[in-house]
Amino acid sequence: MTGKIDRRAVIGDKEPNTREEIVARALNIAAVKGLGALSIGGLAKELKMSKSGLFAHFGSKENLETAVVERARVLFFDHVLVPIEERGLEGIERVWALCDSWFDFVEQGILPGGYFFTGAYFQCAGQSGSIPRQIKRVVRDWRDVLWKALDQARWRDEVRMAVDAEQVAFELNSILIGAQWSQLMTHTDHTDARSAILAKLASLATEEIPASAFESVGSWKSYLDNRTE
Amino acid sequence: MTGKIDRRAVIGDKEPNTREEIVARALNIAAVKGLGALSIGGLAKELKMSKSGLFAHFGSKENLETAVVERARVLFFDHVLVPIEERGLEGIERVWALCDSWFDFVEQGILPGGYFFTGAYFQCAGQSGSIPRQIKRVVRDWRDVLWKALDQARWRDEVRMAVDAEQVAFELNSILIGAQWSQLMTHTDHTDARSAILAKLASLATEEIPASAFESVGSWKSYLDNRTE
Repeated sequence: MTGKIDRRAVIGDKEPNTREEIVARALNIAAVKGLGALSIGGLAKELKMSKSGLFAHFGSKENLETAVVERARVLFFDHVLVPIEERGLEGIERVWALCDSWFDFVEQGILPGGYFFTGAYFQCAGQSGSIPRQIKRVVRDWRDVLWKALDQARWRDEVRMAVDAEQVAFELNSILIGAQWSQLMTHTDHTDARSAILAKLASLATEEIPASAFESVGSWKSYLDNRTE
Repeated sequence: MTGKIDRRAVIGDKEPNTREEIVARALNIAAVKGLGALSIGGLAKELKMSKSGLFAHFGSKENLETAVVERARVLFFDHVLVPIEERGLEGIERVWALCDSWFDFVEQGILPGGYFFTGAYFQCAGQSGSIPRQIKRVVRDWRDVLWKALDQARWRDEVRMAVDAEQVAFELNSILIGAQWSQLMTHTDHTDARSAILAKLASLATEEIPASAFESVGSWKSYLDNRTE
């Protein structure tokens, strides 16, 4: 193509790393201050870019927000779910690994401010629009991952058949969110919360799994190492 | 006082209802969209006031936010704590009443978007500054109210002496927050969450209280009605 260059197309299409970088920086801001704190103008200032340059990448504040939420989603599921899929964990072992990995995600500070979606969800769940829908979808997806793992554990005879998997998914999630709440207040680690998850699993488990397996994170590891498949 | 009227003083001091009204409207916005969505300019537009008129009331965005958070705090404690104080409820009965009243606060939609402080807390806890401090103080005060009630229940021999009141305050709070999380997702009521609170209390109670008292909200009420003081 010759002649007059469309500057917008050049910025938007030819510098994908820069776009990635902008989204990463924007997510760091949103993770600490909330999505509400994102503005094209403010971000342009922060990144020492022109507003029109930024606008060329996204076209609207909403597109920028969409990209930020999507990046947060990918970071979260890449960290929490993908390794568990790769290891092929199933049933109650998978349920524990999901929760453990969730704590890990918050502890490692992969997003500043902890688990981005708790704040974003409580903030936006009452609103309509595409961004709230996008955030609610991520939270629902996470609930469904827990739910299905619990259901699988029922069919594997690791969790009692009478257990309501959806209800327990909510309860486990309450422990996760509550732990984040506590940690933000007292800066304690998640040792107690991990014990609470194990205690919850102990209360659901069938006799297939010895009660001693749920005594601590260490006992759970030993149980998994020693069980005969 | 005669002579030149200071317009700022007139607006700021002589029209307290208007200031109240501005704060109420601003809180309704913040409760749905988050504190980050508040701006003097946006609010002026919404209230069909001049920016300078609004500014005269508050002097800064920070002062407006402070007033909004303080109003949310007063609404919350007026609804949840004050009636319990007035009824003189103590110990485990007080613990239950606090949780029940918290659900009530969310259910009655006294603030649009539910319990303002969950979103605000998760959003701001990683930030420094006077507004995050103010929000964290409210959340800590609420934790302390639960904690003290639990501790009182221990000394009244209603809850086992070995119970860690601070830890349980966190656990009860997790159930409250988790219930709000669920409710925002599935629009269910808080029946399950109330049962979860009663089950938690049952697990802590001494033999002074019959296990049947914790079976349902109805059984708890009957127990309280029939017990001999």
